[in-house]
Amino acid sequence: MATEATNGAAAGETNGAAKEKTVTFTSLKPQLFVESSKASDAVAFYKAAFGAEEVNRVSHPKRKADQELPLLLSAEIKLGSSSILISDLTDDSTALVKTVGTGLVFCLETEDIEAAVDKAVKAGAVADGEITEGEGACCGGRVGKVKDPYGVVWLICNPAKKCVDVEA
Amino acid sequence: MATEATNGAAAGETNGAAKEKTVTFTSLKPQLFVESSKASDAVAFYKAAFGAEEVNRVSHPKRKADQELPLLLSAEIKLGSSSILISDLTDDSTALVKTVGTGLVFCLETEDIEAAVDKAVKAGAVADGEITEGEGACCGGRVGKVKDPYGVVWLICNPAKKCVDVEA
Repeated sequence: MATEATNGAAAGETNGAAKEKTVTFTSLKPQLFVESSKASDAVAFYKAAFGAEEVNRVSHPKRKADQELPLLLSAEIKLGSSSILISDLTDDSTALVKTVGTGLVFCLETEDIEAAVDKAVKAGAVADGEITEGEGACCGGRVGKVKDPYGVVWLICNPAKKCVDVEA
Repeated sequence: MATEATNGAAAGETNGAAKEKTVTFTSLKPQLFVESSKASDAVAFYKAAFGAEEVNRVSHPKRKADQELPLLLSAEIKLGSSSILISDLTDDSTALVKTVGTGLVFCLETEDIEAAVDKAVKAGAVADGEITEGEGACCGGRVGKVKDPYGVVWLICNPAKKCVDVEA
């Protein structure tokens, strides 16, 4: 349950009781989970129904032997000035949401995941696991996860930043 | 279950099989329902946890005799460039969402509710009731409601436009 607040030089000199850091979120994207293998249909529907524009599509990296087509890890569609992610509900994501359809998490994008998770936890959210990276993450980048007091799961992620240089 | 596609002059000359109209959505706002009377706490939490900025707050017009404080019809908070509406779950809204917390609808704002509902229905959504206006609507304006094939409720609304001149 503990989250690592310090990762590389980002957290600076203060460890433990760190000073309040400014956290800036660049984007908020609701991620909607639909019944497995229907995400692609859902995207087509939102295009037809609401004139949504598909701006990005990422297939699930794991394809089961019995699957004809890879599942959608997430497709990003734009509606007005906002984006929604549409995803197939997989074994990985079942833990995130309890229900299909209205099963939803919010993805908050930021440059500084650690500071953002810290701030949320101090305010009363519960961190859920370590900050992870890679294939399972909503946006393919690094991602932290917190659950708020109202039952909503927030993925705090940095989709642009790859982790190649973190180990250096 | 039928929706009125023509309301005043907006639908123009063609009734019934109307030509495809261009529908523009200005805004998409997820509306999150929390357990009754906790919406205000939730707003405070999102401010503390994520630095959300409250941009609007509308109390519920109906206050029950046994309530100390009016419920929140919706408070709009801004996160990044996106907005979320936070609402107390009331008798009115229970029909919209089945679960508290992750119980969520999307509000799509547009100038032309009728055309937007029509287009969604043609694409396979199911219109839910008539287009209504006033106090119960998510944004206090006119609102149509459709349910998509994936179980998600979309409120198609025009919060800015009042209905005073529609009868003329």
